[in-house]
Amino acid sequence: MCGIFGVIGHEDAARLTYFGLYALQHRGQESAGIAAWDDESSTAHYHAGMGLVPDVFTEEHLRALPGRTAIGHVRPSTTGRPQLRNAQPLVARMRGGVQVALAHNGNLTNAAEIRRELEDEGCIFQTTIDSEIFVHLIARALTYNTMEEAIQIACNRVEGAYSLVIMADDRLIAVRDPHGLHPLSIARMGESWVFASESCAFDLLEAEYLREVEPGEMVVVEPGANAFRSIRFAEAKKVRQCIFELVYFARPDSRVFGEDVYQCRKCMGRNMMRESMADAECVIPFPDSGIYSSLGAAQEAGVPYEHALIRNHYVGRTFIQPSQSMRQFSVRVKINPVRSMIENRSLYVVDDSIVRGTTIRTRVAKLRQLGAKAVHFRVSSPPIKYPCFYGIDFPSPKELIATKYDPAQIAEMLGLDSLHYLSLEGLLASVSHPEDYCTACFTGDYPTPLPEVQDKMSLEHRSAPRCGC
Amino acid sequence: MCGIFGVIGHEDAARLTYFGLYALQHRGQESAGIAAWDDESSTAHYHAGMGLVPDVFTEEHLRALPGRTAIGHVRPSTTGRPQLRNAQPLVARMRGGVQVALAHNGNLTNAAEIRRELEDEGCIFQTTIDSEIFVHLIARALTYNTMEEAIQIACNRVEGAYSLVIMADDRLIAVRDPHGLHPLSIARMGESWVFASESCAFDLLEAEYLREVEPGEMVVVEPGANAFRSIRFAEAKKVRQCIFELVYFARPDSRVFGEDVYQCRKCMGRNMMRESMADAECVIPFPDSGIYSSLGAAQEAGVPYEHALIRNHYVGRTFIQPSQSMRQFSVRVKINPVRSMIENRSLYVVDDSIVRGTTIRTRVAKLRQLGAKAVHFRVSSPPIKYPCFYGIDFPSPKELIATKYDPAQIAEMLGLDSLHYLSLEGLLASVSHPEDYCTACFTGDYPTPLPEVQDKMSLEHRSAPRCGC
Amino acid sequence: MCGIFGVIGHEDAARLTYFGLYALQHRGQESAGIAAWDDESSTAHYHAGMGLVPDVFTEEHLRALPGRTAIGHVRPSTTGRPQLRNAQPLVARMRGGVQVALAHNGNLTNAAEIRRELEDEGCIFQTTIDSEIFVHLIARALTYNTMEEAIQIACNRVEGAYSLVIMADDRLIAVRDPHGLHPLSIARMGESWVFASESCAFDLLEAEYLREVEPGEMVVVEPGANAFRSIRFAEAKKVRQCIFELVYFARPDSRVFGEDVYQCRKCMGRNMMRESMADAECVIPFPDSGIYSSLGAAQEAGVPYEHALIRNHYVGRTFIQPSQSMRQFSVRVKINPVRSMIENRSLYVVDDSIVRGTTIRTRVAKLRQLGAKAVHFRVSSPPIKYPCFYGIDFPSPKELIATKYDPAQIAEMLGLDSLHYLSLEGLLASVSHPEDYCTACFTGDYPTPLPEVQDKMSLEHRSAPRCGC
Amino acid sequence: MCGIFGVIGHEDAARLTYFGLYALQHRGQESAGIAAWDDESSTAHYHAGMGLVPDVFTEEHLRALPGRTAIGHVRPSTTGRPQLRNAQPLVARMRGGVQVALAHNGNLTNAAEIRRELEDEGCIFQTTIDSEIFVHLIARALTYNTMEEAIQIACNRVEGAYSLVIMADDRLIAVRDPHGLHPLSIARMGESWVFASESCAFDLLEAEYLREVEPGEMVVVEPGANAFRSIRFAEAKKVRQCIFELVYFARPDSRVFGEDVYQCRKCMGRNMMRESMADAECVIPFPDSGIYSSLGAAQEAGVPYEHALIRNHYVGRTFIQPSQSMRQFSVRVKINPVRSMIENRSLYVVDDSIVRGTTIRTRVAKLRQLGAKAVHFRVSSPPIKYPCFYGIDFPSPKELIATKYDPAQIAEMLGLDSLHYLSLEGLLASVSHPEDYCTACFTGDYPTPLPEVQDKMSLEHRSAPRCGC
Repeated sequence: MCGIFGVIGHEDAARLTYFGLYALQHRGQESAGIAAWDDESSTAHYHAGMGLVPDVFTEEHLRALPGRTAIGHVRPSTTGRPQLRNAQPLVARMRGGVQVALAHNGNLTNAAEIRRELEDEGCIFQTTIDSEIFVHLIARALTYNTMEEAIQIACNRVEGAYSLVIMADDRLIAVRDPHGLHPLSIARMGESWVFASESCAFDLLEAEYLREVEPGEMVVVEPGANAFRSIRFAEAKKVRQCIFELVYFARPDSRVFGEDVYQCRKCMGRNMMRESMADAECVIPFPDSGIYSSLGAAQEAGVPYEHALIRNHYVGRTFIQPSQSMRQFSVRVKINPVRSMIENRSLYVVDDSIVRGTTIRTRVAKLRQLGAKAVHFRVSSPPIKYPCFYGIDFPSPKELIATKYDPAQIAEMLGLDSLHYLSLEGLLASVSHPEDYCTACFTGDYPTPLPEVQDKMSLEHRSAPRCGC
Repeated sequence: MCGIFGVIGHEDAARLTYFGLYALQHRGQESAGIAAWDDESSTAHYHAGMGLVPDVFTEEHLRALPGRTAIGHVRPSTTGRPQLRNAQPLVARMRGGVQVALAHNGNLTNAAEIRRELEDEGCIFQTTIDSEIFVHLIARALTYNTMEEAIQIACNRVEGAYSLVIMADDRLIAVRDPHGLHPLSIARMGESWVFASESCAFDLLEAEYLREVEPGEMVVVEPGANAFRSIRFAEAKKVRQCIFELVYFARPDSRVFGEDVYQCRKCMGRNMMRESMADAECVIPFPDSGIYSSLGAAQEAGVPYEHALIRNHYVGRTFIQPSQSMRQFSVRVKINPVRSMIENRSLYVVDDSIVRGTTIRTRVAKLRQLGAKAVHFRVSSPPIKYPCFYGIDFPSPKELIATKYDPAQIAEMLGLDSLHYLSLEGLLASVSHPEDYCTACFTGDYPTPLPEVQDKMSLEHRSAPRCGC
Repeated sequence: MCGIFGVIGHEDAARLTYFGLYALQHRGQESAGIAAWDDESSTAHYHAGMGLVPDVFTEEHLRALPGRTAIGHVRPSTTGRPQLRNAQPLVARMRGGVQVALAHNGNLTNAAEIRRELEDEGCIFQTTIDSEIFVHLIARALTYNTMEEAIQIACNRVEGAYSLVIMADDRLIAVRDPHGLHPLSIARMGESWVFASESCAFDLLEAEYLREVEPGEMVVVEPGANAFRSIRFAEAKKVRQCIFELVYFARPDSRVFGEDVYQCRKCMGRNMMRESMADAECVIPFPDSGIYSSLGAAQEAGVPYEHALIRNHYVGRTFIQPSQSMRQFSVRVKINPVRSMIENRSLYVVDDSIVRGTTIRTRVAKLRQLGAKAVHFRVSSPPIKYPCFYGIDFPSPKELIATKYDPAQIAEMLGLDSLHYLSLEGLLASVSHPEDYCTACFTGDYPTPLPEVQDKMSLEHRSAPRCGC
Repeated sequence: MCGIFGVIGHEDAARLTYFGLYALQHRGQESAGIAAWDDESSTAHYHAGMGLVPDVFTEEHLRALPGRTAIGHVRPSTTGRPQLRNAQPLVARMRGGVQVALAHNGNLTNAAEIRRELEDEGCIFQTTIDSEIFVHLIARALTYNTMEEAIQIACNRVEGAYSLVIMADDRLIAVRDPHGLHPLSIARMGESWVFASESCAFDLLEAEYLREVEPGEMVVVEPGANAFRSIRFAEAKKVRQCIFELVYFARPDSRVFGEDVYQCRKCMGRNMMRESMADAECVIPFPDSGIYSSLGAAQEAGVPYEHALIRNHYVGRTFIQPSQSMRQFSVRVKINPVRSMIENRSLYVVDDSIVRGTTIRTRVAKLRQLGAKAVHFRVSSPPIKYPCFYGIDFPSPKELIATKYDPAQIAEMLGLDSLHYLSLEGLLASVSHPEDYCTACFTGDYPTPLPEVQDKMSLEHRSAPRCGC
C-alpha cells in the first residue's frame, strides 16, 4: 500500500506535496519522494529518501524543488531489504526530451510477463518495482503516439491495481485502474487542482473535495486550466474496490470510494455486535485499529466504551533490545492495560482483523493475568484467508491463522471465552455499494486473472507478493 | 515536570533504567540521562543527551554502563534554550571519593537564596538547575556526617518540591519532600528494587507495585538487601500532592499518590457533567488529553462517546513551515475532525484544561465551519489562574486566559454555546483523599513560602519559574 | 574525472572494493558506490551514497554486499547540484534477467546524439550521466547478441573517453576506449583479478600490477578462471592518453599509462627549470600539487627545496563562513607561509598549472606582504587554453586566465617577478612515449570529432561539459 | 596536549575563537568548546562537543554565542573513554554571580592531593580533569579576595604545567606557569587582544604577534582597554619549556617560546646529520612529522630530499576493518612508497622520534620488500625514556622502545642498516636558549616534584598520566 499525491497550479507545489504526503504518512513510512517541474530551467527536479516525510525533506530540499506542478509518493516498509532506488516518484526522460515523473499505488498481476517481454526487446530495469513497467510502456508507445495516448496504451497492457499520478513536464495526469482497486480523489484549492489517495490530505490543505477519479478514468490537467479533461481509457469492467481500505487502511477522517470511513467502521462494529452479543460489561478496543468499530459496538450493545488499553505514543521508533528475561517486551511497550478496568470484569475486546494472532494471544494472556473474568473477542471483518495480489502486504497464507483454523479453534488457541468475526454479509451491509468491492482476501474471488496460479487451493499455500509500487 | 527512575540489584540495571525512562517519556522529551555504578572499576559511568530516550541511547551506550545499580532522568522542554549540561542525573565526586548521582523532579522555592549563600562560601555552580543545590548541600554536610545524614540535612535546608533518586556509589536512596508534591513509588522485581515517578514504568518491567514513597520519607536500599530501610527525615507537614498530576500529567494507566489515574479522570468527567448538562448529542474529546474525562462524561450524560477528532500520530516531530497562505496549519496538522460527526449536530467537546485558549479557539472555529449546530465545551478541572512554583511549566499568568476573563467571557471569546469548568469541589470529589492535595494553580493557596513575593495579587502578574529539575 | 575499481574471485569482494575506492578517493569525493554479485540469491546488490568512501559505507553495508565479484566507483563534485541518482555503478536488469552493473570514467562526445536516438526509439533515461547510454546500448544489442558482443557493439557506437568495469552477473569485464584516454590497469592478488584506474589501489591491497588494459581492448574474466581473455574490439587508432593525468590528477605513487607518475613530475620540474633559470635562493611548492615538480626543479637548479607553505590538514571539510572583515580567509586557512623562509629572500614558487589564477594572486600577495624579495613563479605544464571534452572538469574557457592573456600579462596580473610555463616540448620530453598523449587542453588538437562545434575559435568561448561519468 | 585561545574586544568574538581553534586543531581532535560573554543578557553562553571544530560548531551555534569576549579549547583523544563532560572550557558561577570560564593546557603534578583536600572540605567534582581544580580554588579564594588575587592564590597552590585563558564575566585573563612548560602568546588585532597556544592562530586571523606570556606572568585585559596589565604572580623559577613542542607538537609555521619552529626543526636535522653521516643517496621523510628535519638533513648531507612516501590525505577518518588476510593494512593505508625511488637505492629515512617502533618496523620492512639497498634511519631527537607529567601523552614506559633497548638493539629489531638519534647536545644546539627547556622525557630530570614517586628507577616502570586538561 502506498500514498500518492499531485498538485498543479500552485506557486509552491512541492511544499503542498510535502504536506499532502504528511497527511498520507500512514500509507507508507519507508520512503518518501517528491518531483516538481521547474519552468525556468525546464527540468523535473527530484528528491527522495528513506524514512518519514519530515525526516526525508528539509527546507533546503523544498527550495530546490521550485515550480507549479508536483507529485509525491510514500511507500510502506516491506519485508525485503529497503532500497532507495525503489523510492518513487520514478523520473525519466523520454522521446523529445519530455520528462515524466510517475507515482503508483497498487500491484500489477502481469508484471513479470511484461517485464520479461520488455527485457527481451532491450529495455533495462533499474528498480524492482512494477511502476517502472509503466514508465517503459509509456516511453515505447510515445514513438507513434501522444503522451495521453501512450498512457492509455500502457494502462491497457497491464492488469491489476494502479492508481497513478503522472507529471509529464508541466502537465498533471491522474489514472485509476478499471476495477478501481485503490482510491484516488480530486479536489480544488483556489486556482490549483489537487489529487490524493485519501481526502484527509485535502483537509490538511483546506482543499475542497470534488469526487473520486472513476475506475477506468484518466484525468488530465494542463497548467493554467480552469477545468480538467476526463478520458475513459477502458471499457466498463466490474468495479471492485478494496474493502480492506475501509476496514483498516484508510484514515478514519478520510473519505475513500465515496464512503465516510468513520461511519463505515462504526457500522461494521454495530453489525458485528448484532451478530453476536454476549453479556460483557464494556467494550475495549485494541488501539488505534479497533477504536471506531468499538464505538459502534458499544452503542449497539448499550454498554460503555472504555479506552482502557493505553498506547505509548513514543513507540514506533527503534528501541534497544530488552534482555532475555524481558519476554514479550515489544508487545508490552506499545500497549498497557488499565488494571482497574480489567480486574474481575467481563469484557468485549475489539480489533479490526486478526492476521497471525500472536500479538493478540500475548495481550489476551495479559488481560487474564490482570484478572479479567471473561474476554469476548470481536473482529470487525471476516477471517483473512487468501493473499492479496493488488498491494495489501499480508503475510503468506501459511502464517495467516484463519487459513488453517476455524474460529472455534482460534478462540481456543487465543484463550478466549468467545470469538466472533463480522460476517461477509455484515461487512458488505456496512458500505453503500456492496457490489462494488473486492473481498478476495476473505473469499478468494479475485477480479483479475492471477499470475501463474492454477487453482485456488494452491493459493492458500503461496506467499503474497511484496508491494510492487 | 520530569520523570525519575532507579533500580538496584539487577545485573543489567542501566538497560532496565532505559526501559523505565521509555515508559516515563511523556514526563520529559528534551533530554534523557542514565548513571550506573560499575562495581569492577568502582566508577559511576554516565551518559545523557538531548532528545527522546531511544534517540539518546544506543546499544553501545548501554554496554558502556555496566553494573547492578542505576538511576535515570527525563526532562521536558522548557522555554529557554536547551542545554546539555542541565541534563540529569548530575554526577559528582565527594569526600572520600564517593560518587553521587542524583535525579530530581520538582522545583525548590528557596533555590536562589541557597545558591547565593553557597556561592558566597566558595561553591561553584556548573548548571542552572536546582538539583545542583542538593549536590552541594550533601557534599558539604558529608564533612561531619554520613551520607544518609547528609541527605537529610540537605532536605531540611531546602523548601519546595523534590522527589529524588540518588545513587551513592552502589547504594540507592529515594526521597520525597514533606508535602509529597510530586509522586514516587516503590516496586519489587525479583531480587531487585525499583523506583519510578509513575507505576506505568513498573508495568513495562513487570515489576510489582508496593507503595508510594511517603511524603517526608527517605528510603535506603543497600546492594544485596532483602529489605529497604525507611527513615522519616522531616516532621509531619500537611500533605499537599499536585492534583494536576491526576488532571493531566500522569499516564492514564498509572497509579500515582495511591490513585488510579484512569478512574480519577472518568470521575472528573462524571462530576463535570453532573454540574452542567446541556442537550448535546454526543461527547467528543480533544485527543488525547480529553479522552478519559469524556468517557465519564458520556456515561453520565447517557449520550454516545465519539472519537471524532482524529490525531495524526506522525506529528510531534519537527516539520517544515507552511507557506503564508496556509494559516493555522500547525493546529490542523495535529487534529482533523470527522465531518459527518460534526455537521448539523450538537456536541459536547471536552478537554482537561484551558491554558491560553488559542488552540481551542481555532479548533472550535473549525467545528463551526464544518456545520456544528452547537458546541458545549466542558473542562474537567477548574480555571487555572496562578503560577506553579513546584515544577508545572504553565505559561506566565498574563498568558493564562482564566486570569483575565471569567468563564462567560471566555465562552464568548472562543465562540462557544456554553462553557463549564469542573468546580474545585467536583475536582476534589474525584480523588480519595481530597485534603491531601495542592490546588494552588486554581486557588493561589500555596503550601510553602514563596520566593520573594509579597502578596497574591502580584502573583497573577508574574511569570512561573522554569523547570528547576 | 572518476575512479573505477573491480575485483573477481575473492570471498570478500565488496570489502576489497571499498579499500580500492579508498585509495582512489582523490579521483572523486562527491559520491561512492559498490555493486556486488551474490551467488546465493543470484542478485546484484548495490549501495551508493553522497560523500567520501568511509562516510558512505558502514560495516553493515558491506555485510549486505556478499559475493566474489564486485565493482565500485567514486565521482568528483561537479558544478551542478549533486544528485544521488547519478551515483555509479549503474545497475540494471536486461534480457534473460541478466543483471549488469557498470562503472565508467570519461566523457562521450556523441552522447547527446545517441541519447536522442534512443529516446526516439522508446528508451527512458533515469539519470543525466553518459554512462546510462552504455547500459541502454548493451541492453538493446543483447536481443541478438551475447553479452561480450553487445558490449563491443555499444563501444563501437560511442565516441570519446571511456574506461569501464562491468559486472554481468558474476563475470567481470574491463574496457578501455581505442584512444586510451583514461587509465585502467590489471593486477593479480592470489586467486583474484583486480582492475583499477591507478596502481595505488593495487599497492593498498598488495596486489601485483600486471599491465594496462590496452586502448581498444576488452578484458573478460570468468569466475574461477586462471586467466583472462583479451578481445580487441576496435581497430588500432592513434593512442591519445590524457597527459593531465600525469601533470596533476593521478597520485604520485601510482603508475598510469605505464609511466611512473613521481618520476614524470620530477622530470617536468627539471625541464621547466632548464628552460628558465633565475637567481632565486630556494624552491617552494604550492602543496601538495607543486611538491613533485619542485623536487626536480630544486635538484636541477642546485638550490634548496623548502616546504615552507604549510597546509592545514583539517581543512577540506566544510567550515563556517568568516565575518566580512576576514577577507581571503578561505585561501589563508588552507596554506600558511613560514615567515622566516620568505622574508627578504628571492624565491622560486612552483605549481603544476594555473587555472583561474585567483588563488595564486592572493598567495603571491601574501608572500610579498611577508617581505619576499622576488617571486619567480614556475609552472610544470603549458598554459591551459582549451576545454576538455573527455572528462577533466576545467572551468569554462572564459574563466581560464591563459585563454585571454599571455604569460607576460599574467605575470603582471599576479604580481610576479617572472613567470615561466613548461613548454609543450618540455612536457612531452618528460614522458616515455610522447606521441601517445592527448594535449588538447594546451593545443586544441582533439583526437575525436567534437560535439556540434564548428571551429576552434568558438571553443575558446564555450563551457567545458560537466563530468559525464 | 591541548590548544587554548581567547579574544577580547571583537564584536564577533566566538567566531574568531572558532577560527582560532581551527588553526590549533592539530593540538586536539577529541573535543572542542567555546564560551562567550553576552553583555546583553550578562550571561556566559557555552557550547562544546565531541569531534573536530567544524563538526562541533554550526552557524547556529555561533549565533547563539554573541559577545565581545570569548575563549576556546581543543582537547586531544586520550586512551580512556571520551566524555563530553570533560570538554572545556569549564564554566561556573561563583560568589556574587560572577561567571568564570576556564581553558587549560597542561597537567598538574599535585592534582590528586588537592582534589582530596577539596573533597574533604565539601567540594564536588563533576569532571575528571585537573582544570576543575583551578575553578574550585578560585571560587574558594574569592570569598576574601578579588578575582585577580584569587587566580594568583590558585596558581600558587598548584604545581605542574598550566597555560590558562580565563574569562571572568567580560574580562580576559591569561596565565602561564612559572616554569613556562607550555606556550601561550599575545597578539593584537585592530582593537582586540588575542591569546593562543601557537602563533599560527594569529596568522589565520591576521593578528599581529606581540610576545609570549612570560612564565609566572598573569595578563589581564579589561573590556575596551587599550593596554593589558601584567602581573608577576610567582617568584622567578628556572624556566623549563617543553622541548617536545619544538620537536613534534607545534605546527611548523608557528612561533612558540619565541622560536621559529620550522628553523628549529631544520637545525635539528642538520645537527643530526652532522653527528652521523652515511653514504645514502637521498633523504626521505616519514610524512608529515619527518619533513622539516629532513630538509635540514638533506641540505647538510648534500643529497637530494625526496618526498617519496606518499600520504593518503583522506585517512584519519574512521574506516572499516579490513579482513584477516589484509595485515598491516592501517599502516599501508596511510603511507605508500614510490617504488622507483626505493628500489636498489641506499636511503636516509627520517622521523622526529621513535615511540613504540611498531609502525616504523612495518614501514622499513616494506622498503626492504621494494628493494631498498640500505636504510639508514635518522631521528631528530634523543631516545624517549621517561614519562611526561606535564601533558604529553606518551605511552607507558614499558611500551617505549628506548626504555628497554639501546640504539644498536633497536636498529637490529627494526631491520636497519644504521640508526642514529640526535644527541641531547645537538638538540639543545638547535634552539636559542638551551638552558630554558625541559628535557625530562629524554633525561628524567624533572623541573617539579613528582606525584608520589620515590625514585627515578620506578619511573621507567610507571604509566604516564593521561591528559589532565
